[in-house]
Amino acid sequence: MIFTYQRTVRFADTDAAGVVYFANILSMCHEAYEESLGHSGINIQNFFTHPFVAFPIVHTNVDFLRPMYCGDKLMISLIPQKIGMNKFEISYEITVNDVIVAKAITRHVCIDVNSRNKQELPDEMISWLEANRPDAESAERRRSREEII
Amino acid sequence: MIFTYQRTVRFADTDAAGVVYFANILSMCHEAYEESLGHSGINIQNFFTHPFVAFPIVHTNVDFLRPMYCGDKLMISLIPQKIGMNKFEISYEITVNDVIVAKAITRHVCIDVNSRNKQELPDEMISWLEANRPDAESAERRRSREEII
Amino acid sequence: MIFTYQRTVRFADTDAAGVVYFANILSMCHEAYEESLGHSGINIQNFFTHPFVAFPIVHTNVDFLRPMYCGDKLMISLIPQKIGMNKFEISYEITVNDVIVAKAITRHVCIDVNSRNKQELPDEMISWLEANRPDAESAERRRSREEII
Amino acid sequence: MIFTYQRTVRFADTDAAGVVYFANILSMCHEAYEESLGHSGINIQNFFTHPFVAFPIVHTNVDFLRPMYCGDKLMISLIPQKIGMNKFEISYEITVNDVIVAKAITRHVCIDVNSRNKQELPDEMISWLEANRPDAESAERRRSREEII
Repeated sequence: MIFTYQRTVRFADTDAAGVVYFANILSMCHEAYEESLGHSGINIQNFFTHPFVAFPIVHTNVDFLRPMYCGDKLMISLIPQKIGMNKFEISYEITVNDVIVAKAITRHVCIDVNSRNKQELPDEMISWLEANRPDAESAERRRSREEII
Repeated sequence: MIFTYQRTVRFADTDAAGVVYFANILSMCHEAYEESLGHSGINIQNFFTHPFVAFPIVHTNVDFLRPMYCGDKLMISLIPQKIGMNKFEISYEITVNDVIVAKAITRHVCIDVNSRNKQELPDEMISWLEANRPDAESAERRRSREEII
Repeated sequence: MIFTYQRTVRFADTDAAGVVYFANILSMCHEAYEESLGHSGINIQNFFTHPFVAFPIVHTNVDFLRPMYCGDKLMISLIPQKIGMNKFEISYEITVNDVIVAKAITRHVCIDVNSRNKQELPDEMISWLEANRPDAESAERRRSREEII
Repeated sequence: MIFTYQRTVRFADTDAAGVVYFANILSMCHEAYEESLGHSGINIQNFFTHPFVAFPIVHTNVDFLRPMYCGDKLMISLIPQKIGMNKFEISYEITVNDVIVAKAITRHVCIDVNSRNKQELPDEMISWLEANRPDAESAERRRSREEII
């Protein structure tokens, strides 16, 4: 099952060009990540407020395909993937009325907060990564949508 | 009926003190206002994107009673009130688990966007103001909660 | 001497109405506060990143007098005032080309970060408050400008 | 000459992990772009507030190399490059005390705001692109720094 988060575009997200300010898309993707973690039973307050282990973002990229307007109902789906003992990557797809408006990636590395040294992903993150692995069918659906773009 | 909007505190809302950055509370209150307008049938995109008539905020104030943390489920209730031919004010009450954590006010004036001159509130705003007028019972409940603080 | 901070309005500060989003004025005022602290020799990183003593805002209010546009050069002056053993308040005045566009207040309380109990203002804050006390002349100038509004 | 913009990290830029929230780096890069445009004589208010021609970002990516803290003095240098009749790309390098902490790219396309159709870059943008083309020497210096990372 691909986790999907609904998010209405707010006035604060927009800029004087009348559309969503580009960097704000990444905050919305991060919200989808937070919601997905909470959905899998992780305590969000402990996870994000002065934790011992953290997952800072070391790379991100976004492709903006269409403008987003205040009031738009975005659907943000995310697919995380383990890419090493201490790393994972999340792919986001943002749609409005089933049309893709943006795609993004965030790559995270697991660190000990005090030393800032890399460390192995803890069990709760391994579980989250496995629970959100796309099944064969939904991966196929996503791929075929790719080809249409 | 008092309109209430649920809003989860996001990581982007927080600051290095580990709690919600003070100014972000106002953005969350504005979200509640947007949601309430949409709920009463107003087209949010038209309302906020290059409109002819706008309702800029001329005054705001906030009392912060308790810190808010990432993951907190905020309930934001709002009570708007007409305060003249071209003005209205909204009172917000933010609670977490039924405990008030902040209270805010935004005062709005109605202007013609091109001239920036004041003008009378249009019918759709009058309707929204009336639809969100608190009934006697809920105003009473709110007042008694005030006295406890 | 009244401390003054220059701040250019950025595209990210604006919203789809083409002007500065109301809550962002408070972030700009807070920047002026940070700059003023740094100017008086306080180490900003220690002060704001996981400190032992903090000064959360318990009240704020803003009056918006004129819209601000991307590219505007704001001058933000601030006057702090001690209002008790563990409290102080800052008044901000924001001008563009010598015209006041907004006025704001933030009220801060001093707390021990771990217990979140109130505690007396530490010496470095007392020094900062005294160093930024307006002299008689500039207070007079400010007052007379008030009367014009 | 490579244009460089100095930017102090503010409390509002940080999150509960105590460092700059990842998406905010992109806003800071955009500030450097705005400052560079203003420096070359472009009227920023006209450029960004309800213009006829706009340059929305169609792609962005960021590599985060080190955490940034409140109070850090960032130096953001930018190198824009024309990549077609209606496109340009900007490379940003962010340093603190001469150490690279992040690198970013924004790719922009020129559109007519009303139709949202692509159109040729106007003269003032061509001039800006040429004025900010790195000379041979500074490009070399940048490249040699790359190799060290």
